[in-house]
Amino acid sequence: MSSPAPIKSFTLKKTEGRARTGSYLTAHGAFETPNFMPVGTRGSVKGVDCERLRELGAQITLVNTYHLWLRPGPSVVRALGDIHRFMNWSGPVLSDSGGFQVFSLEGMRTLKEEGVEFRSHIDGAKCFLSPEISIQIQEELGVDIAMVLDECPKAGQDESAIKKSLDMTLRWAKRSLEARRSENTAVFGITQGGLFPHLREYAAQKLAELDFDGYAIGGLSVGEKKEDMYSVLSYHPVHLPEQKIRYLMGVGTPEDIVEAVHSGVDLFDCVMPTRAGRFGRAFVRGDEVQINIKNAQFVTDQSPLDPTCSCIACRSYPRGYINHLFRVGEMLGPQLVSIHNLTHYLDLMRGIRSAIAEGRYERFYAAEKARWRTGGGAPDDGAN
Amino acid sequence: MSSPAPIKSFTLKKTEGRARTGSYLTAHGAFETPNFMPVGTRGSVKGVDCERLRELGAQITLVNTYHLWLRPGPSVVRALGDIHRFMNWSGPVLSDSGGFQVFSLEGMRTLKEEGVEFRSHIDGAKCFLSPEISIQIQEELGVDIAMVLDECPKAGQDESAIKKSLDMTLRWAKRSLEARRSENTAVFGITQGGLFPHLREYAAQKLAELDFDGYAIGGLSVGEKKEDMYSVLSYHPVHLPEQKIRYLMGVGTPEDIVEAVHSGVDLFDCVMPTRAGRFGRAFVRGDEVQINIKNAQFVTDQSPLDPTCSCIACRSYPRGYINHLFRVGEMLGPQLVSIHNLTHYLDLMRGIRSAIAEGRYERFYAAEKARWRTGGGAPDDGAN
Repeated sequence: MSSPAPIKSFTLKKTEGRARTGSYLTAHGAFETPNFMPVGTRGSVKGVDCERLRELGAQITLVNTYHLWLRPGPSVVRALGDIHRFMNWSGPVLSDSGGFQVFSLEGMRTLKEEGVEFRSHIDGAKCFLSPEISIQIQEELGVDIAMVLDECPKAGQDESAIKKSLDMTLRWAKRSLEARRSENTAVFGITQGGLFPHLREYAAQKLAELDFDGYAIGGLSVGEKKEDMYSVLSYHPVHLPEQKIRYLMGVGTPEDIVEAVHSGVDLFDCVMPTRAGRFGRAFVRGDEVQINIKNAQFVTDQSPLDPTCSCIACRSYPRGYINHLFRVGEMLGPQLVSIHNLTHYLDLMRGIRSAIAEGRYERFYAAEKARWRTGGGAPDDGAN
Repeated sequence: MSSPAPIKSFTLKKTEGRARTGSYLTAHGAFETPNFMPVGTRGSVKGVDCERLRELGAQITLVNTYHLWLRPGPSVVRALGDIHRFMNWSGPVLSDSGGFQVFSLEGMRTLKEEGVEFRSHIDGAKCFLSPEISIQIQEELGVDIAMVLDECPKAGQDESAIKKSLDMTLRWAKRSLEARRSENTAVFGITQGGLFPHLREYAAQKLAELDFDGYAIGGLSVGEKKEDMYSVLSYHPVHLPEQKIRYLMGVGTPEDIVEAVHSGVDLFDCVMPTRAGRFGRAFVRGDEVQINIKNAQFVTDQSPLDPTCSCIACRSYPRGYINHLFRVGEMLGPQLVSIHNLTHYLDLMRGIRSAIAEGRYERFYAAEKARWRTGGGAPDDGAN
């Protein structure tokens, strides 16, 4: 093999303050950073076919281990090839470990050092997930990047509970690395530690002692206040190894992303663009940051969702038509606004990468923050 | 104007037995016949964006006057341009008159000579539809082909009731023609007469005395037995003027279409391809005529829905993946099978046109009928 960069490696290209551009190479090609992963929980980015997904410029997608494990099961995915063949996505795929979903099953799970016993949300069947099983499932799916199984503790717990949970997460991280079998699957560690700075630092140090292919920040955007999340971002990403990719899990609004990049984060995922899209909320550029296309003001609006956007919704349809689709319950409405929002996010990431490459990220950041301050802020209708 | 064929005109090209090929010219271009119109009831072919709609080879689409009248209303469509701009479909558009929907509102409507009073299915608001109002709405929408308002009597009524209804429909047809104002909107008459041959002939004769731009057969595929519909097809299409286009409304399965073309019909519409698609039923070529992709036998099936099809579903995804999408309730499943079925129908129409053009429709017809006899026949799960 004479490949210039080995797979599972991050190449840092340029920094501006804490913000960085780079690229990450996988067995299914490279993606540039900072980047955003459209979420295909069950192996499908909701309402978006693979050709549209490529068209909007996605370079990597995310799937969910918990959901694909239960249905259709990794053996079915394997029988159809692997996750790439299954969903016809030839680029990089990252899977989360399933931990977040399992730990959301309150009252239906029992946590032990060995792993977590739970009942399937589909049929109540008894299941058992451990760090080793999670890695095994992810390797069987054939993803390019697997996440370790971690415990994401409930917000608001006291420090000793968070520390206890974190220590188990760190032991699980080590077990995850030892469980890896595939040469082609990168494994990323995840920090926890709640909102406690020294626990976050401790988590980062302990994980850095293990040779992960990348490092993720977990346990944010799980119900805490925005200022609390931003506080963690102000000190925590730089705890993580500089030469490795940094991934902030499950975040967030465009404002959150701009903030996190400013703090040194490289990779993101969030259901927000597609979930907001299904509710008719479109992210836009300009004075407003978001519009609700269902509002009466758009009934006879001839302009596109966002005149600066080139997605199929914006190049083909007036706002009035999309308003109509939502009012009469046509599925094309959610499809179009989801595609638009994903395009908005991926355009944002391209803009961020260019700004850092050209040494003007500080200005980009300030302008975007100002726009969010005056433009109405983040969505607050429970659909985020 | 030195255009070779005037708009609103049908050009007969070739016949084989009763089957015909031709083309119909509208203010938004021509479509070839025999042809099938994807149904965009509320101005959207369910789950299919305008680019995919063009890709699958549709030459004309259908919208529903009743639904667009109530929401968003013709004035809103007008404010956004016309129906073509509204739904971004630059080709021909035909609208039905709204009669079928209004007469389905049993117990919520009162029929008078002047028109029909009814309550909106959305908010119970009192509405009034007459032949004149229907034409006016359709012209305001800016469609290329408007259908007259007719009464579609319930199946199983006695001859005198059907005759009485038919006579009113014929008076309404005359009023519809007198109500036309737009040069660019063709108006098609509709025959009724139930399953009575002499009433069907009478309807055709009376309508032929009026100068319609095309003639439709109404009141079929409304719950009667298949052999009863085929019986009407055996004698009725040839009652209609030979030099005008003949449209069989709301029909049907691929087998029905092949049968009706054999009887001299030129144009079709039906919700079947998209409705069946939403239920996971895919039309295929080969030994079977239809498969239910939700069936367990397809869980690990690596082949496409139909290896002879070039639609996005067939060129991109294995059956096993589409099975998975339906099992987990992902909207991409209905989208893909709807697009596949529409492609199947439009490929069928292309095949029919080629067969007639090349003088081999009789063989084509016999082969397709044989395939349906042995291949399992029409869907019967209530979703057609």
